[in-house]
Amino acid sequence: MQTFVKNLASMVGQEVEVKGWLYNKRSSGPIAFLELRDGSGWVQAVAAKSELDPVVWEEIEKSTQESSVVVTGKVAKHPKKATVFELQVINFKLLQLAHEYPIAHKEHGPDFLMENRHLWLRSKRQWAILRVRDAVITAIGEYLHKENFIKVDSPVFTPNACEGTTTLFPVPYFDLGTAYLSQSGQLYIEAAIASVGRCYDFGPVFRAEKSKTKRHLTEFWMMDAEAAFVEHEDNLKIQEGLVRYIIRYCLTNCQEELKILERNTEPLEKADKPFTRYTYDEAIKKLNELGSDIKYGEDLGNDDEGLLTKDSQVPVFIEKWPKSIKPFYMKRDSVNSDLVLNDDLIAIEGAGEIIGGSQREEDYELLLSRIKAEELNEEDYQWYLDLRKYGSVPHSGFGIGLERMVRWITGVEHIRECIPFPRTIGRLRP
Amino acid sequence: MQTFVKNLASMVGQEVEVKGWLYNKRSSGPIAFLELRDGSGWVQAVAAKSELDPVVWEEIEKSTQESSVVVTGKVAKHPKKATVFELQVINFKLLQLAHEYPIAHKEHGPDFLMENRHLWLRSKRQWAILRVRDAVITAIGEYLHKENFIKVDSPVFTPNACEGTTTLFPVPYFDLGTAYLSQSGQLYIEAAIASVGRCYDFGPVFRAEKSKTKRHLTEFWMMDAEAAFVEHEDNLKIQEGLVRYIIRYCLTNCQEELKILERNTEPLEKADKPFTRYTYDEAIKKLNELGSDIKYGEDLGNDDEGLLTKDSQVPVFIEKWPKSIKPFYMKRDSVNSDLVLNDDLIAIEGAGEIIGGSQREEDYELLLSRIKAEELNEEDYQWYLDLRKYGSVPHSGFGIGLERMVRWITGVEHIRECIPFPRTIGRLRP
Repeated sequence: MQTFVKNLASMVGQEVEVKGWLYNKRSSGPIAFLELRDGSGWVQAVAAKSELDPVVWEEIEKSTQESSVVVTGKVAKHPKKATVFELQVINFKLLQLAHEYPIAHKEHGPDFLMENRHLWLRSKRQWAILRVRDAVITAIGEYLHKENFIKVDSPVFTPNACEGTTTLFPVPYFDLGTAYLSQSGQLYIEAAIASVGRCYDFGPVFRAEKSKTKRHLTEFWMMDAEAAFVEHEDNLKIQEGLVRYIIRYCLTNCQEELKILERNTEPLEKADKPFTRYTYDEAIKKLNELGSDIKYGEDLGNDDEGLLTKDSQVPVFIEKWPKSIKPFYMKRDSVNSDLVLNDDLIAIEGAGEIIGGSQREEDYELLLSRIKAEELNEEDYQWYLDLRKYGSVPHSGFGIGLERMVRWITGVEHIRECIPFPRTIGRLRP
Repeated sequence: MQTFVKNLASMVGQEVEVKGWLYNKRSSGPIAFLELRDGSGWVQAVAAKSELDPVVWEEIEKSTQESSVVVTGKVAKHPKKATVFELQVINFKLLQLAHEYPIAHKEHGPDFLMENRHLWLRSKRQWAILRVRDAVITAIGEYLHKENFIKVDSPVFTPNACEGTTTLFPVPYFDLGTAYLSQSGQLYIEAAIASVGRCYDFGPVFRAEKSKTKRHLTEFWMMDAEAAFVEHEDNLKIQEGLVRYIIRYCLTNCQEELKILERNTEPLEKADKPFTRYTYDEAIKKLNELGSDIKYGEDLGNDDEGLLTKDSQVPVFIEKWPKSIKPFYMKRDSVNSDLVLNDDLIAIEGAGEIIGGSQREEDYELLLSRIKAEELNEEDYQWYLDLRKYGSVPHSGFGIGLERMVRWITGVEHIRECIPFPRTIGRLRP
């Protein structure tokens, strides 16, 4: 019966069968050190020629990197490291002898690795990122359900372009003309809150952006949350609660993964405290003091985000932006109607924006005037306007880009490592 | 402070504030019965004219269906029903007076309802379906994580057509030609198991099928699970375990929802027992006995699925189909190489197929010969073949169509009600 590596700690002295792959092999004369991976974890198996059938020893000797194997062994504590366990090999079965593996344990160029993404995923580092990604997804679902949100999936095929068509992917759609691949499900879950109160979607969204930066993918995962009767202040509380929950969840459940990634976890531990808040106005002033030449009314660039957070131990909210640079659906600030009740949440350590959120305009006339002012097609938004005609309520929401969150938690540089099969302007394979 | 309706049972005698929508109103002279919805549940509020400020009573009188309201009241047990609670209204605030609501409490045609899907979602029945759908999603994630699977998202943009191009949606993709919207992430998560051992994806998939049946959508949610070192027998066990977990989870957590849907839960309770298994061969014989004219070598139609399960209290596995009618990647049965080690799981009550699964061919040469025999483009599958060159292992997986599962659990007839914003050949809005 198969035993998972992650369960070995509780089985010291027992004989177990581990099924997996040979990640690495070092031989020292009649002793072989086999590094095994079974998906749940990594373990060293120690094989002594003198204690094994010659046929078994021969199998070990001929096994290559990434060969699939079944190893029977006795679980032992590592002689020197208290929390490490190893296998003393009793039997070894080679399932399939791997051909010469293209990804050796050395540096490869990114193009080569991306071309071999289906194999690259097996590396220790990619394994760790995949598992942190799963933990972030799980943490988001857990927290939101605790906060009375349910999952309501928004559609990918949408009839119109919410925020201009330049970065949309068009798809011919039967006799109905053109469908566009969704860039955000927000408008749809705004409809659903009048049914279920609080909900979120979580799925792939698409941007035909011709950007080649380290932060851009054409297909990425987005979580949009929306809540009825939640106003700006509480919207920020939910966002902060969620981000701190994600941090705690990953620190608790991904210790091994973060160690493999050589992630210094201290900044994450320290980030689990009340977040800093600046108004947009304060942020611009502070940036100017710090030497940025950003002007009031401009969006923050990556450099600005980095500058603003460089001395902060916690993520920073920037709230109440000029309405001129934000989408039509954001609610105006009652104190200063040139501003909207929105927020961007900037992570620390140069990881940039991880959340964008806002209270939404719930007044029919004001919303309509914004749609007209931005020269959007009123017809396209008729159903969205309906939500303000039939029982409109104060409501707010926010969106998290999954890969950006994973990038921050893992500390990896390039977003393409934060999604299993990245799609960029120049990559559609494998 | 807002109290959620679902928490009222524990607050009898207390004064609470409920924020939500007026679903229905009945007046009996100086008494008004207000049916309220807040997303978490439904509650009746009883307002007595004699006990309220005349201005408040006037607000109640003018409130229309779907108006948004804030009701302050004292929680009381229903005079006759033990498990039902109601509010004795102390104060009532009308937030927004709804315009005349297009969906009255009467029968509407499906086209009208679909056109107003953004509002139709508020009906009691649609609310219940949305919540069961969320419960099914949660149950799937919980069960799979317990069974050591993690979520590994597969891409939507794929470079080639896995099973023929006739039902694929093409998308122009920069300088790389055409991308196709994925119909299944299976091949991708097969790559990922060599990293994480067991994984699943869960996202939207796309079929440009010109079908107008009650079971077809152009965009629907699919969960694909894949596990290394799991063979046919264990594959069936995981599938059965998952389906029975979903049933139990929904019976426990969706009592109110299933009641609203008038779902007879007895068949679901009875289905949580070991599933029946037929080989394809046995299934055909049994169908012929039951009067079907299906011939050996043909796929089962809806009628056949219904016929085969009509006397069964549990879902029925049909395993080991002729390889001629199944995809190239399925592993052949070692006893009879004309068959493959696959299964379809047919739900009871006429709900049809809910799972398709198989052990996958792990031998490089056999897989290559199947790719050639089916005249698929070998080049396109090079990366998939790689998985058999570098540490190939026995492995199996299966896929669940979320909407079909929700359709069975809820007992609703049409699949378009099982997804928040359905997309069909004739529908792209709202």
